[in-house]
Amino acid sequence: MEPRNFLRFLFFPLTLGILVLFFTWLTFTHAPPSAVELLDCATNSPWCTSKNRIQHQPPNQPVTPKSTRLRDHTLDTPHHPLDPLTVQEIRKIRTLLSSHALFRASPYSLHTVELEEPEKSLVIGWKKGDPLPPRKATVVARARGASHVLTVDLSTEEVTVHQTGKHSGYPMMTVEDMTTATVVPLTSAEFNRTIVGRGVNLTDLACLPISLGWFGKAEEGRRLIKVQCYSMKDTVNFYMRPIEGLTVTVDLDTKQVVKISDKGKTIPIPKASNTDYRFSTMEQNRVMDILNPISLEQPKGPSFVIEDDHLVKWANWEFHLKPDARAGVIISRAKIRDPDSGELRNVMYKGLASELFVPYMDPTDAWYFKTYMDAGEYGFGLEAMPLDPLNDCPRNAYYMDGVFAAADGTPYVRSNMVCVFESYGGDIAWRHAESPITGMDIREVRPKVTLVVRMAASVANYDYIVDWEFQTDGLIRIKVGLSGILMVKGTEYENTNQIPNEDNIYGTLLSENVIGVIHDHYITFYLDMDVDGSDNSFAKVHIERVKNSQGDSSTPRRSYLKATKKVAKTEKEAQIKLKLYDPSEFHVFNPTKKTRVGNPVGYKVVPGGTAASLLDLDDPPQKRGAFTNNQIWVTPYNRSELWAGGLFVYQSHGEDTLAVWSDSLALRSKTVRQVTYGEMIMIEVYSGVTNPNCIAGKGIG
Amino acid sequence: MEPRNFLRFLFFPLTLGILVLFFTWLTFTHAPPSAVELLDCATNSPWCTSKNRIQHQPPNQPVTPKSTRLRDHTLDTPHHPLDPLTVQEIRKIRTLLSSHALFRASPYSLHTVELEEPEKSLVIGWKKGDPLPPRKATVVARARGASHVLTVDLSTEEVTVHQTGKHSGYPMMTVEDMTTATVVPLTSAEFNRTIVGRGVNLTDLACLPISLGWFGKAEEGRRLIKVQCYSMKDTVNFYMRPIEGLTVTVDLDTKQVVKISDKGKTIPIPKASNTDYRFSTMEQNRVMDILNPISLEQPKGPSFVIEDDHLVKWANWEFHLKPDARAGVIISRAKIRDPDSGELRNVMYKGLASELFVPYMDPTDAWYFKTYMDAGEYGFGLEAMPLDPLNDCPRNAYYMDGVFAAADGTPYVRSNMVCVFESYGGDIAWRHAESPITGMDIREVRPKVTLVVRMAASVANYDYIVDWEFQTDGLIRIKVGLSGILMVKGTEYENTNQIPNEDNIYGTLLSENVIGVIHDHYITFYLDMDVDGSDNSFAKVHIERVKNSQGDSSTPRRSYLKATKKVAKTEKEAQIKLKLYDPSEFHVFNPTKKTRVGNPVGYKVVPGGTAASLLDLDDPPQKRGAFTNNQIWVTPYNRSELWAGGLFVYQSHGEDTLAVWSDSLALRSKTVRQVTYGEMIMIEVYSGVTNPNCIAGKGIG
Repeated sequence: MEPRNFLRFLFFPLTLGILVLFFTWLTFTHAPPSAVELLDCATNSPWCTSKNRIQHQPPNQPVTPKSTRLRDHTLDTPHHPLDPLTVQEIRKIRTLLSSHALFRASPYSLHTVELEEPEKSLVIGWKKGDPLPPRKATVVARARGASHVLTVDLSTEEVTVHQTGKHSGYPMMTVEDMTTATVVPLTSAEFNRTIVGRGVNLTDLACLPISLGWFGKAEEGRRLIKVQCYSMKDTVNFYMRPIEGLTVTVDLDTKQVVKISDKGKTIPIPKASNTDYRFSTMEQNRVMDILNPISLEQPKGPSFVIEDDHLVKWANWEFHLKPDARAGVIISRAKIRDPDSGELRNVMYKGLASELFVPYMDPTDAWYFKTYMDAGEYGFGLEAMPLDPLNDCPRNAYYMDGVFAAADGTPYVRSNMVCVFESYGGDIAWRHAESPITGMDIREVRPKVTLVVRMAASVANYDYIVDWEFQTDGLIRIKVGLSGILMVKGTEYENTNQIPNEDNIYGTLLSENVIGVIHDHYITFYLDMDVDGSDNSFAKVHIERVKNSQGDSSTPRRSYLKATKKVAKTEKEAQIKLKLYDPSEFHVFNPTKKTRVGNPVGYKVVPGGTAASLLDLDDPPQKRGAFTNNQIWVTPYNRSELWAGGLFVYQSHGEDTLAVWSDSLALRSKTVRQVTYGEMIMIEVYSGVTNPNCIAGKGIG
Repeated sequence: MEPRNFLRFLFFPLTLGILVLFFTWLTFTHAPPSAVELLDCATNSPWCTSKNRIQHQPPNQPVTPKSTRLRDHTLDTPHHPLDPLTVQEIRKIRTLLSSHALFRASPYSLHTVELEEPEKSLVIGWKKGDPLPPRKATVVARARGASHVLTVDLSTEEVTVHQTGKHSGYPMMTVEDMTTATVVPLTSAEFNRTIVGRGVNLTDLACLPISLGWFGKAEEGRRLIKVQCYSMKDTVNFYMRPIEGLTVTVDLDTKQVVKISDKGKTIPIPKASNTDYRFSTMEQNRVMDILNPISLEQPKGPSFVIEDDHLVKWANWEFHLKPDARAGVIISRAKIRDPDSGELRNVMYKGLASELFVPYMDPTDAWYFKTYMDAGEYGFGLEAMPLDPLNDCPRNAYYMDGVFAAADGTPYVRSNMVCVFESYGGDIAWRHAESPITGMDIREVRPKVTLVVRMAASVANYDYIVDWEFQTDGLIRIKVGLSGILMVKGTEYENTNQIPNEDNIYGTLLSENVIGVIHDHYITFYLDMDVDGSDNSFAKVHIERVKNSQGDSSTPRRSYLKATKKVAKTEKEAQIKLKLYDPSEFHVFNPTKKTRVGNPVGYKVVPGGTAASLLDLDDPPQKRGAFTNNQIWVTPYNRSELWAGGLFVYQSHGEDTLAVWSDSLALRSKTVRQVTYGEMIMIEVYSGVTNPNCIAGKGIG
C-alpha cells in the first residue's frame, strides 16, 4: 500500500470519529441544563437515578418528560391490518350504533369496542404499501337486559348482530359498572346505619366492587356484584382497614341493593398507623435514600424504532404491539431476522395474557366467592394505569397510549399505558474464557441487552407487571411481577398467642387485627406460535431412565437418560401436567422445515409453572378456572378461542372454557396456551453452539 | 414562619444543590476526555456500551480501567477472622512445610492451602478492633503416595498432621495436575502414531484432562485421569473438532500413560469452518453492531463500600466476601439492618457453591465416565478466570483478586476473579397505582436496584456464571448462568436422514459430524442460615386441599387450600423432593424470636430446582452424586460437612457424601443445603405489606 492510500484510509475513520464526537457534544450542549433541571429528576436530566421522584413534582401536575408529553390522537389513522381502532373510528362506530335499532330506544352500554382482526391469511399476505383489509369492529354491548355481539363494518357502515346462543356469563365489566357499584350501597339506609354503627364516617368510606363468581341459583339470571368497604380515615391505604364481614350484593343493571350481609360487627377495624406507603410520608431511614443515583443511559438513544405507531423493530426482531382493554397488550406477527439469508422468519402470530384466576382459600361468608378472573371480569387493559416515567420504565423508554371506548361509546385515551425499552442490568448473554488448562488467551463476552414491552395493571389492591422480553438469540420471555398491596381480612386477634389451636384463620396474622388470606394467582398466556409458517406441531420430548441390566458388560454404567420425542396427535395428548420426576421438554415445531442437518425447526416452550391448582375439579370456581387443570394445552387454531375462561366469563358456569373446547379432537393445527407464566426458549439453541453467532443473531436453527 | 426563617430554609437546599452541581462538574472536567478516550470503550470513558470491546485493544495488553489496575498484594494483612490467607502467610506456610518431616525428603504437591476458619463462636464474638483469633491454615497435600490433611498454626508455627482415616477419593486436582495430564500422552509413541493416523498434526493438538469418576477396580488404588484430544487446526474452537473415541488413561502421580483406548478411527473430525466464536472474526451481520451503546451509569459512584478488602457494605446489607479455590466465592456473616432498631440482624453465617455434578448420558466407551464434579475435582475457584471489565461486569464494578497457592506452595494472584456491582435493569421492586375504580391519584413506584457478587468459572468448555444477588427487601437470590461451549461427540452422520431409527445417538445432531450429548448440570449450595441467631429450625409448610362434604351448607365452596406447618424433627423429615401437585413451602426460622404479632422470624427457602436426577440410585455416578437425590437437605451443624460430594471427591466411591451423613439422626441444629440453584425470600415479606416500608428496608419481620 502506498503511503498516500494509507493516509486516505486513515482519513475516513478520523472524520467519522470527529463527526461522532461533534454530535455527542451537540447532545450535551444543545439545551444547556440549568442547575434546577439537573437536579430535578422529574425532567429528563441526564444524571438522575430512577428513584421515586414523582414526589418532587407539585401535586396534580403529571410528570411529562419531553419524550412522553401527552399526544393528540384525534388524527390517528391505521397503518397496519392489526392496528387498533382510532379515535375517529370509535366515534364513527358510536354514531352508527346510536342509530341502530337495538340501541335507538333503550339505554345501553358498550363493554367491548375493538378491532375485529382480519382473517389470519389476509394479515399474513398483507405487505406495507398494500391497501388495508376492510376495517371492522367487534362490539359487545348490553341492551334490553341482554348481551349482544356485533360486527361494525367501518367501510360499508353495516352493523351485523351475531347470534351467540345462550350463555351463562356476562361481558367484562365497564369502568362505569365498577365505579357505579361502589356508590350504590350508599342508597341503602340500612347500609348507612351499619357503617355508622361500625364507627365509620360515611365520608371516610372506600368501597370495592368484587366479582362474585358463580355458585348456583343465587348468581344466575341477573348481573350481580358484591361490594365491600373500608375506612380510609388517616390513611390512603384503606385496603388495610377492612369493615370485615359486611357484604352488599348489588344488581349491576338496575343499580340496586339486592342483599346486605353483615356478619363482622365484633371485628374491629385495624388501625391506620404505619399503613401509609407513600414515599413522601415514609420515615427517614429509607434504604433508597442512601443509594447513589443509578440509571440506564443510551447516549445515542435507543436502538429500536416504532414505525407507524405500532410496529416495533429492534435488533433482529420485528413485531406488532398494541394495547388491549382485556389482555393489556397484544404482541402480533413476531418475526426474527435470519442472519444468513437476511430474511425475517415467523415465530409467533399472536401472544397475549388470556386470563388470570385468583381463588382465595377462605370458605366463610365474606370470602368464599373471591375467585377473581382479573382479565375477563375487570379488564387487564382497563386497569392498566399510566406508567410513571423513570420509575416504572427507565429513561429512553417509549410510551404507547391506549385508545378505548367508554361505556357510552365515547373514545378516551389511556396515556403511557405500555412502555418499550432496552434493558441492560449487567448480565451476560454469552461468555467463554479459556481455562488455565489450555492457557489460551481468550476472554469472549457478549453482554445481555434485551427489549422489554411492559404493562402494569392495577386491579384494585394488586398490581400485575407484565413484561414481554425479547432476546437477540431468539428467546421470548414472559415475566409477570406481582406487586401492590394484599387484600386482607379483619380479625379480633392481635397476636398469634390469642389464636386457639383449633381455629383455622385461613391465612397468617400479619399485623394487629389483620389476616393475609391464602390465595393463588394463575396467569394463562395464549401463544399462537407460527414457527416458520402456520403449519406447526407439538411434541413432548420425554426424558426417561434406561437401566442397564447387571449382567451387561458393555458399559460400567447402570443407567442413563434417554430423550424420546412424541408428537401429539390429539389435544388430549397435548394436555400437560409438569412432573419433576417424570420430566419432558415441550417443542412447537414446523414439520415441513428442517435445519441444515435435518432437525425440525421449532421453539421450546418452557412453562414457568411453580403452582398447580389443587381445588376440587367439581368446585364451581375450579370449573370456571378449569384452564388451570393443566400447565400446557394445545388446541387447533380457532380465532374465537382467545379467552381461556370464555368470552363471557363474568358469572359464567364454566361451560365455555379452554377445558371444554379441548376435548379429544384430532390436533389439526396448533395454538399453544401456556398456563401459568413462563418463558420460551429456542429448541435449536444447540444448533448455534458450534457457531456462537447464535448469541449475536442466529434466530431459528 | 417569618420570612427570614423561610429564607434560611431555602438557603440550605440551594447551597447543597450548588455543591452537588459543582462536584458533578468536577467529575466531568477533572480529566478532560480526549477524542480517543471518548471513543475507546476499553477505557473508563463515560459513553460506552458494554459490548465486546476487548477487541479494540492491542493484543497482549490487558484491559485495565482505572478502577481495576492490577493490585500489589505483597503487603496485604488480614483484618477479619475470615479473611483469606495473604501472600505473606502463604509464603510462611511454604517455608514451614518445606522443613517438615513429611515433605523434606520427597516430592510433594499442595492441593489446598486455605484459611482454617476459627470456630463459629469465636467469629460471631469478634468485633472490629479486637485482636484476630490465631491465624491457621488447612493444607491438603499429596506426598509419599498418600493424601494428608494438616493444620499450620501461623503464630506458633506448629504443623499438625491429622489422622483422616482411610478414604477412597483423592484431593481436588491442582492446576499443575491438569496441565501435566494434557501433555503426558505425547510421551507415548503409540498415541502419537494414532494422532498422525487420524490426520492431525501433533502441533494442532489440544487435549483435555477428564476426571474419570469411579466404576470399580479399574479406578481404585491410584490417581488416574482420562485425556481426550481435539484438533485446533483452523479454529480456536477446538471443542468442535473432537478426535472421537480416543481416550488415554494417565496416572496423575507417576505421569505415565496407563492405557490407550482407540475406538473411533472411522469417525471424521468435524470441519473447522464456521466454528470460530471470536467477535473479531465473526461475519459482519452481527446483531450487536446495530445496537446503540447502553450502559449502567452512576455519576456519584457506587453505593457500596468494601472495607478492609473483604467486608461489603451496601444499603441495609453487610457481609464478608472472599474468593475460594474450591467454591469460587464464600459469602459469610450476611446481616441486614433492622429499619426500626437500626441494629444489624444475622441472616446467614456462610453460603457457598458446594458441588456441581454433571453426568453425561452416553454409556459408550469414550463417554460413560463423564460424570464430572466440577467443584471438588477441578476447583470452581481455580477455574475462575479474570473477569473482563465492562463486559463481564458493568462500569463501577469493584474487582476482587484471589490469592491462592500453586502446587509447590508459591502464592499467586488471580486478578479480577470476583466482581461486585449494583444492578438496575429497569425493573420494579414494588409499585402500586390506584385503579380507575377508586380514582385516587396514586402512583407509587420503587425501582429495583440490587447488589450482585459475580464469579465466572471456566471449567474447560463450560462457563458457569454464579451470582449472589442481594435485595433491599431482604431477599438473597443465587443465580447460576450456564454459558460457554458444548462438549460434543464426533459422528459419521452429517444429516439426521442418515441415522437409522434404531440407532440411539445419545443426543442431537447439531452440525455435520457433531452430536450434542444429553447431560445435566446439578449445582448444590451450602447455606448455613443463622436467622437472628444460630438456633434455627426447619419447617415444611404443606399446602393441601380441604374438601367440604356435599351436605355441608355452611359454604357454597366445595374445596379450599390449607397450609399446615410441620417442624422437622429428624434429618429424614427435612429431605425434600419437590412436587408440583403436593406442594410445600420451606421455612428456616428462629423458634426463639417472634415478630410483633407473634409469628416466628425466619426466611423462606425457594429451591430453583427444575431438574431432578433420574439415574439409578445404584449407578456409581449417582452414588457419588447422591446429594442430588433430594432438592433440599437439612443437617445438624458440623463445620467439616461443607462439601456435598465429600472432602476427597476425586475418584471417591461416594461413601462421604451428604446422603451418607444425613441419616435419621435427630436434627440438633441446622445447616441448609439447597440442591440445585435457587433463591431465598423472606418468610415475613407479608408482615411488611401493611407498611410497604419493607420494600425500602424492612428486613426481617
